[in-house]
Amino acid sequence: MALLDSDATVDVADLMQDMGDRARAAARAIALASTETKNAALAAIAAGIRARTDEVLAANARDLAGMRQRDVTVAYQERATLNETRVEAIAQAVEAIAALPDPVGDEMAAWERPNGLKISRVRTPLGVIGIIFESRPNVTVDAAALAMKSGNASILRGGSDTIETNQALYGAIAEGLESVGLPADVVQLVPITDRAAVGALLTGLNGTVDVIVPRGGKSLVGRVQAEARVPVFSHLEGICHIYVDKAADMQMALDVTVNAKMRRTSICGAAETLLIDRAAAEQFTTPLVQALQDAGCEVRGDEVVRGLAEGVKPASEEDWSTEYGDAIITVGVVDGVDGALDHIATYGSSHTESILTEDEAVATKFLTECDSAIVMHNASTQFADGGEFGMGAEIGIATGRMHARGPVGLEQLTSFHYVVRGTGQVRPK
Amino acid sequence: MALLDSDATVDVADLMQDMGDRARAAARAIALASTETKNAALAAIAAGIRARTDEVLAANARDLAGMRQRDVTVAYQERATLNETRVEAIAQAVEAIAALPDPVGDEMAAWERPNGLKISRVRTPLGVIGIIFESRPNVTVDAAALAMKSGNASILRGGSDTIETNQALYGAIAEGLESVGLPADVVQLVPITDRAAVGALLTGLNGTVDVIVPRGGKSLVGRVQAEARVPVFSHLEGICHIYVDKAADMQMALDVTVNAKMRRTSICGAAETLLIDRAAAEQFTTPLVQALQDAGCEVRGDEVVRGLAEGVKPASEEDWSTEYGDAIITVGVVDGVDGALDHIATYGSSHTESILTEDEAVATKFLTECDSAIVMHNASTQFADGGEFGMGAEIGIATGRMHARGPVGLEQLTSFHYVVRGTGQVRPK
Repeated sequence: MALLDSDATVDVADLMQDMGDRARAAARAIALASTETKNAALAAIAAGIRARTDEVLAANARDLAGMRQRDVTVAYQERATLNETRVEAIAQAVEAIAALPDPVGDEMAAWERPNGLKISRVRTPLGVIGIIFESRPNVTVDAAALAMKSGNASILRGGSDTIETNQALYGAIAEGLESVGLPADVVQLVPITDRAAVGALLTGLNGTVDVIVPRGGKSLVGRVQAEARVPVFSHLEGICHIYVDKAADMQMALDVTVNAKMRRTSICGAAETLLIDRAAAEQFTTPLVQALQDAGCEVRGDEVVRGLAEGVKPASEEDWSTEYGDAIITVGVVDGVDGALDHIATYGSSHTESILTEDEAVATKFLTECDSAIVMHNASTQFADGGEFGMGAEIGIATGRMHARGPVGLEQLTSFHYVVRGTGQVRPK
Repeated sequence: MALLDSDATVDVADLMQDMGDRARAAARAIALASTETKNAALAAIAAGIRARTDEVLAANARDLAGMRQRDVTVAYQERATLNETRVEAIAQAVEAIAALPDPVGDEMAAWERPNGLKISRVRTPLGVIGIIFESRPNVTVDAAALAMKSGNASILRGGSDTIETNQALYGAIAEGLESVGLPADVVQLVPITDRAAVGALLTGLNGTVDVIVPRGGKSLVGRVQAEARVPVFSHLEGICHIYVDKAADMQMALDVTVNAKMRRTSICGAAETLLIDRAAAEQFTTPLVQALQDAGCEVRGDEVVRGLAEGVKPASEEDWSTEYGDAIITVGVVDGVDGALDHIATYGSSHTESILTEDEAVATKFLTECDSAIVMHNASTQFADGGEFGMGAEIGIATGRMHARGPVGLEQLTSFHYVVRGTGQVRPK
């Protein structure tokens, strides 16, 4: 696939529809490919990436030169930068995905009817996945490998800043697919930087795209959620809460809260709000705030918190619904577990929340009544991750209630159908 | 809720948004209601319907008088007509739904991580379901009961021809909900006949509606699929296929084919196309066509079929993708199971297909490679039904690949979340 110039005369709608049609045609080939064939393709892709290291790094250098000429932050450039170690890590990630169990064909449930019909629910691929991401080149390969292993065709639309890097990596993907007899169209990379391509993909391209997975910041995900005419697996933000109940173990509360906020502040499972039970506010607030501050965290608080602890800035209304992605936390006092549930329902993002308590009944109430994708008891919200859940790899975290929720791993990229085996049964009457 | 006149000055968008907001508020109440409370509400609704039989029949008579004044077919009027027996059947259907197991809170999967975290996947309600249906008054109650039992709020939009009947039935629903302390807004009935209400509902009402379920003919479902901005559980049509392989048992092929087509011709699981393996066409075509004709079915066929059997009309290209819903079938000869799979992929509607063969390898190939919601071996396609699957009741059949596929019963009206139980685990590094 040649790199098209964005200035060239190209009908974006036609180009994208053609990609959709080719993806739909290729979807049947990958859906029916054996586990061995898919794993052989993934192994070939990993080998191809290693063999193309120089080419990939040269393309990446050209992308970075372009970014330096434009208004691009150093942090952004850093995320887009590859080196030999990072290219090797990309290849290894593909091998790790090849090593995961193949979900396609799994029997999810099976039962027999009184008339002897044997019914089972069997995993099938979803079809065609559109993946829209920003300028992290590793996503190109990671997303393609996850989609392939789960039997799906994919259309990748990466950030325009790394299009040359993505093209170089894509060369290895196409070659790896073809080396085992699969069509290269099982994975396609949008070859133009025109933003209209994203709009076209979000229409679903006349039913050829089954689901969209956006990977990137809030503005990208927000646009996708607002415009997509097909289902989207995504989370707009992760405003994760820790609730410290009056029956919490103090040392556990300190350890888990500091870990949930500070282990890595930029991941979506990082805690952004700490809620403390009013019945134990005097006991818990000072040590919790102190421990967070000692770990380098800025603490913003409501009036009660500011009255109990030192060095706490006032929390604005906006703070309660802010995903900082940084060493900042907002701390508030609530009226027990019901107050915590109300607060989370009002300000949360349905991502991940954790209660700290030794009271099993209170924990069960929280776990039952909190309508977030992941609810935890006595554990750090930083465990909100497909790898930590044992899924091996994830394409992202979803906060919607349809189809996939929580970490989106290989199983969540599948659908199912019913298989009915009979011996000549006819329906009476 | 008063019956609003469609000529009255009412801002449809405002009215519908208010319904969406009230549904979202009521969704939490029904999501957290115990099985006992939900069953008590359903029992009260069934009793209320019986108690209001006279009122319901009077409202139905007014609806029917209106239909007779308009351009409404007799068959359509018949479907909309209630009598004492039909009202009693509606009440009994609610009691049958009350007797089904409650899916909310079910543990779908559970596992433990090496760090001791116990993770489970637990069923939760979906949220708010928008149900759009034509003039079968039993759907009003049936859909509301299924949504309630699965912990969901619902907004019902029935056909304008039976709005008075629906209002009378809705009175029993609202009263039943309130009698057990649940808000009446758990089920709402759109009180206007303005078609703009459907358009508003299809937008999702600013995120307050999670899924739309249309129940009705192809034009209704087609409009919903084209316009909806939220997920839809539906099938546009059921073009179901029977494939008779060369290794089929002749008597079984005759019995199953006639049953699949003729038991009831109007249901979506009725067969519309019969495909016969070319390798056995001479042996099977004549008796199969004869059996269908003897059962009163009109047979249309391709050239080979017309050459082998008497009284077969020529099949047009359109016939292969037509859901007759009537005693008509199209019969064609294909090149083995691969030919059948290709034909179904080209002309099918991804609903239900069945292979008749004694060859297990061929059956497995068909069941694996056919991408329809339900695939069968040696069984009648008329079993494509939630009740026949043992689900107890269904709100419809879905042919999409997202979330629900095949019969949509109580479980398919739920989502899930992850519950993580720890003992103070923090994430390392």
